[in-house]
Amino acid sequence: MSIQFAVVLSGCGVYDGAEIHEAVTTLLALDLAGVEYKCFAPNIPQAKTIDHFSGQAVALLGDDDNRNVLSESARIARGDIADLREFRAQDFDGIIFPGGMGAAMNLCNAAEKGPDCEVNDEVRRAVEESYKQGIVIGAMCIAPTIIARVLGPKGVSVTIGKDQGVAAGIEKMGAHHQICNTTEVCIDEENRVVTTPCYMLAKSIKEVAAGTQNLVHAMIDLL
Amino acid sequence: MSIQFAVVLSGCGVYDGAEIHEAVTTLLALDLAGVEYKCFAPNIPQAKTIDHFSGQAVALLGDDDNRNVLSESARIARGDIADLREFRAQDFDGIIFPGGMGAAMNLCNAAEKGPDCEVNDEVRRAVEESYKQGIVIGAMCIAPTIIARVLGPKGVSVTIGKDQGVAAGIEKMGAHHQICNTTEVCIDEENRVVTTPCYMLAKSIKEVAAGTQNLVHAMIDLL
Repeated sequence: MSIQFAVVLSGCGVYDGAEIHEAVTTLLALDLAGVEYKCFAPNIPQAKTIDHFSGQAVALLGDDDNRNVLSESARIARGDIADLREFRAQDFDGIIFPGGMGAAMNLCNAAEKGPDCEVNDEVRRAVEESYKQGIVIGAMCIAPTIIARVLGPKGVSVTIGKDQGVAAGIEKMGAHHQICNTTEVCIDEENRVVTTPCYMLAKSIKEVAAGTQNLVHAMIDLL
Repeated sequence: MSIQFAVVLSGCGVYDGAEIHEAVTTLLALDLAGVEYKCFAPNIPQAKTIDHFSGQAVALLGDDDNRNVLSESARIARGDIADLREFRAQDFDGIIFPGGMGAAMNLCNAAEKGPDCEVNDEVRRAVEESYKQGIVIGAMCIAPTIIARVLGPKGVSVTIGKDQGVAAGIEKMGAHHQICNTTEVCIDEENRVVTTPCYMLAKSIKEVAAGTQNLVHAMIDLL
């Protein structure tokens, strides 16, 4: 049986959901490596909805026209996606969290509360269950913040690139921050966690694709 | 100066907009080939809005909560996109139309009217101006239907893969349909048009990425 990975999306679009280039190049890297994947997302309202042309917020939490994280994530997954409630770590060899503001607004509230952020219950369960089960955990861009918040007490090492403010927040959560260049990966062998900066540093989609490919390959090497 | 391509998006999501994997792997193929790109989309309401998790229509043309093609396309382009009105063929060496139902519902109405479809005015202008200027035109998935509708009178050759019904419609528009396998390209050297089936036939994202890369390379070869 081939290797099975879960990919946890947080909406569809860099400003209020999953960063689309990071998510799609992750799926591509998995497929090219012969890994089968299944997408998941929490079935919750977005923190807000941003018009990506104007950059303006057009709906807030509680508004009728605010969007749903699972429905929007389904756009990236072409409809082939499940509620994160259905995720069981025992069915997978790895789990990946692409970045985008959705990771910091929908999967947790780090965009608002920084190192004191709360992580969505189902996201926390997915990370804890994955850790306990010993499957490999991957995260990119701002999403390593979630891993730091949940696995900080385990002394996990992650990277979000070179941003000193975010790195300080990660250290405050009890995690270690490792400075990385754009397409490099931070590998925590003991905790089986791999992270990479992607659009925290990347200037182009080809740099993002190189980063996600390096992440996927490093995760496979840990299996 | 490097080669410049325009990419015309039709929303964000396979069922009511641009197919995200096709659009993103096109941008990646361009970037890897050293081509600079600029994204465009018409500033019009979508034909409808589909919840990609349930598959149900949640807003129709004229509804307050229906979405805008330019604003949704901006998600794929990370906000770096312009109204298609601003497209000038003389500024580019090539123009590419990714697929998805948005190409057949927003850029033209082929999903409803088949070979008798009307093409959005700005999309028609972009194709006609590109043809007149002699820049290379690329299209994938269902989007070659648009090229067939506009350039059918020129006897253009395109592919949408192997779907007999759609192929018959393309012939009815005056264009020639060429059967192609999943990642193959149909090259009309005389009219400077390159097309490829992508998700009309592809079973995976890596097949789509191979198709879009073949399309981009064939377009560059025509320069």
